Amino acid sequence: MRTYKPVTSEVIAKLKAIVGDKYVKTDHDILMQYQTDYESNPRYFHMPEAAVHPAGPEEIAAIVKLANEFEFPITVRGGGTSLADGAIPVCGGVVLCMERLNKILEVDEEGMYLTAEAGVRTIDLQNEAKKRGFLYAGDPSSSESSLIGGNMATNAGGLKAVRYGVTRNQVYSLEIVTPTGDITTVGANLKKCTTGYCLDQLIIGSEGTLGIVTKVTVKLVPLPPYRFDILAVYTDPVQALGMVPKLLKAGINPTSLEYMDNSYVRGTADYCKYNDVPHYEDGIYVIITVETYTEDEVDTKMETVSEICEESGAVDVLEADDRIWNMRRNCQTSVELISSVFLTDDVVVPVNRIGKAIQTVMEIGEKYPFEVKINAHIGDGNMHIVLCKVNLTEEEWERNVEAFHQEVYRYAYSVGGRLAGEHGIGAKKLKYMEEFTPKGELAIMKTIKRAMDPKDILNPGKVFDI
Amino acid sequence: MRTYKPVTSEVIAKLKAIVGDKYVKTDHDILMQYQTDYESNPRYFHMPEAAVHPAGPEEIAAIVKLANEFEFPITVRGGGTSLADGAIPVCGGVVLCMERLNKILEVDEEGMYLTAEAGVRTIDLQNEAKKRGFLYAGDPSSSESSLIGGNMATNAGGLKAVRYGVTRNQVYSLEIVTPTGDITTVGANLKKCTTGYCLDQLIIGSEGTLGIVTKVTVKLVPLPPYRFDILAVYTDPVQALGMVPKLLKAGINPTSLEYMDNSYVRGTADYCKYNDVPHYEDGIYVIITVETYTEDEVDTKMETVSEICEESGAVDVLEADDRIWNMRRNCQTSVELISSVFLTDDVVVPVNRIGKAIQTVMEIGEKYPFEVKINAHIGDGNMHIVLCKVNLTEEEWERNVEAFHQEVYRYAYSVGGRLAGEHGIGAKKLKYMEEFTPKGELAIMKTIKRAMDPKDILNPGKVFDI
Repeated sequence: MRTYKPVTSEVIAKLKAIVGDKYVKTDHDILMQYQTDYESNPRYFHMPEAAVHPAGPEEIAAIVKLANEFEFPITVRGGGTSLADGAIPVCGGVVLCMERLNKILEVDEEGMYLTAEAGVRTIDLQNEAKKRGFLYAGDPSSSESSLIGGNMATNAGGLKAVRYGVTRNQVYSLEIVTPTGDITTVGANLKKCTTGYCLDQLIIGSEGTLGIVTKVTVKLVPLPPYRFDILAVYTDPVQALGMVPKLLKAGINPTSLEYMDNSYVRGTADYCKYNDVPHYEDGIYVIITVETYTEDEVDTKMETVSEICEESGAVDVLEADDRIWNMRRNCQTSVELISSVFLTDDVVVPVNRIGKAIQTVMEIGEKYPFEVKINAHIGDGNMHIVLCKVNLTEEEWERNVEAFHQEVYRYAYSVGGRLAGEHGIGAKKLKYMEEFTPKGELAIMKTIKRAMDPKDILNPGKVFDI
Repeated sequence: MRTYKPVTSEVIAKLKAIVGDKYVKTDHDILMQYQTDYESNPRYFHMPEAAVHPAGPEEIAAIVKLANEFEFPITVRGGGTSLADGAIPVCGGVVLCMERLNKILEVDEEGMYLTAEAGVRTIDLQNEAKKRGFLYAGDPSSSESSLIGGNMATNAGGLKAVRYGVTRNQVYSLEIVTPTGDITTVGANLKKCTTGYCLDQLIIGSEGTLGIVTKVTVKLVPLPPYRFDILAVYTDPVQALGMVPKLLKAGINPTSLEYMDNSYVRGTADYCKYNDVPHYEDGIYVIITVETYTEDEVDTKMETVSEICEESGAVDVLEADDRIWNMRRNCQTSVELISSVFLTDDVVVPVNRIGKAIQTVMEIGEKYPFEVKINAHIGDGNMHIVLCKVNLTEEEWERNVEAFHQEVYRYAYSVGGRLAGEHGIGAKKLKYMEEFTPKGELAIMKTIKRAMDPKDILNPGKVFDI
């Protein structure tokens, strides 16, 4: 990691000239809130030297040019919901806060797209689409607090990826500020395009290291008018996991396929204060959502799904009502009740390996002194492993976490998996990225980063070492 | 464009040492076949200095390293079906022929993917999938002769993109040889991934300028057991085109939605020697394919589609049998009957603009002395405009083509369109790429190319100027 020059009073004055005095913060108390995102371990916090709230792309471009001239780093902050330390300014410098870019600019119902500034909250964008009879299919669990630009940076996944794919599949085009301070659009509002390199997909998921997303144009799909949500309760994880390939091959095209182990069932029921959820003591939950455009289809598919669940050993097949979904959405936050320090991981494997992978991770976990909890977007092969520090000493925690990670990541790569399905690498997994990524692939990534951001201005200390 | 060193006898000897004597061709008569691809105008032909037929990635990597050392360019050739002069070695040097990489390596039915070498013909890959009860959804009209690696290079589109997307949407991972001669894999067999930059999507559609694809792992989907094909015949193009948005909004999720103007209806019927096709004299054809997983769904959707066609003014709604599809697949080849020199163009606009765009291009065409024929993947906003030279002099032809292109491309960009939907830029549209691409976007593309291929070895003279 290179060393940067400090953000001097001269730089502060120039920043104020760009965005206006009140949009540059340097008070220690204010900066405190930007030293972390969703990271719970103070060991990984890092203070910025200033926080800047620009109004739009022109101001951002001017700030990036200034950063290149005065050699300070920029860390962009969306909703601050990164689970990979992605918004922590690990090299100091300026945190760029995107909340002021909060306008939905256009909804084209005929063209079925929506254009918004990058600082719009995901849920506001989703609701605007819904109001017009459309679905914006990107749906990270953090939708109530994440910003749409952050969704782009991390290629957010979420709850509807089985049917609709991840954030990168929802995007027509992006306006970005490049690492050298130019404003440009990448991608286009087209179903097909082979007109030069696919830069939009390169930017999406690059975690703010190749460009700052300032505007997005996303796809809308007609809101499917019919829907059912089934909760299949299992007591045997092998049976629960065995159901997935059967469902995926039945032509059901489910929207969601979510897995909560019993530890999560109990934890989220407690957190939500629900005292009568089915099989609290021994239940493993699989939630299945199917959306359709006709009533006939909804009936046929509901029957098929129920049959598959029953045949595969479900002890109960019920409607998954709002309470069940509320439990699922609160998996992450429920952990805070148990442990103030915890670690959320995000491993992805090929879909047909997910059953075996969850069992393997549980077995690995049994050797360690922390509690291992698993929920999974099981139809995407994406599992979230939460480790709770509870009463371990700092030393015990670090040592065991490291050993656990080495085992789990090695296993994941051995079956064709990767370090991150939807949270990104951030600062948290940088060293594992260096360790596990095939050399040739990593070399290309570094070549591109060095060429596009020669002074390593954008989000340094993230994804990989330069 | 830089100048290269000649392929000397020393280089030829080294190439023979890598691939074996018989796999290096330098005879003028043999090289003649590599001076063009699907280009019909000899003015754009260019002879290579050698044609090399490697056996696999190791040999290709050695050849690329040699090219970097001895400074000769490499043009990769798949099926030679490029409609954008993509496989013409415009700077001379070596043509790398991929036919020997012709093995399907693995079909994983449980994991629903297929791995094949890059030289496998598209149709062979499709058929292998079909044999196992799966669909490989990439389906360029050239499937009988194009190679799967070439599909990757151009991000081939084709006939099923409305429902399944284009080639880039079918890919899990690629093995590539980089421009400096390293072998690496990009992408992974995952539904979700945010583990570093999305290099697979960057390589796909880069037309052989950023890497040589040597192996592909593509997605398979369960073969939908039910299907219907409807031919809706219109006599008024406005009515034919007006049907599209209605169909796309009805939740039908069609697989194909194809448009043939009356000139093509007559031309392909003549070419196929069908003398009783419906409305030969005045018919405009819209072909609609819908695939489903249940019989109920096929019935409901067929009814809905028929209603939409009739309400929108179709004069006939029939089954689209093999003959109709045969006509559609022979649009391109039927042109050869009319004119030995012709020009196939591939403009894409937002889907909701396609109706107006086709009408506008027809109006523009009326001012010119050549015949303008249009077929379109109308559900993707992608139209193919064919201009036939017939009896024009070379000078008249060039002058009018240039003026026509300027008008059409300017119009396409004014409505958010791009130069190429699925054929790519190749050498044919390089100058327009430089003219019409937003400066900032083009600058990033060039930065990436220069960084990844510092000696401009791979497919120089294509896509843009370095």
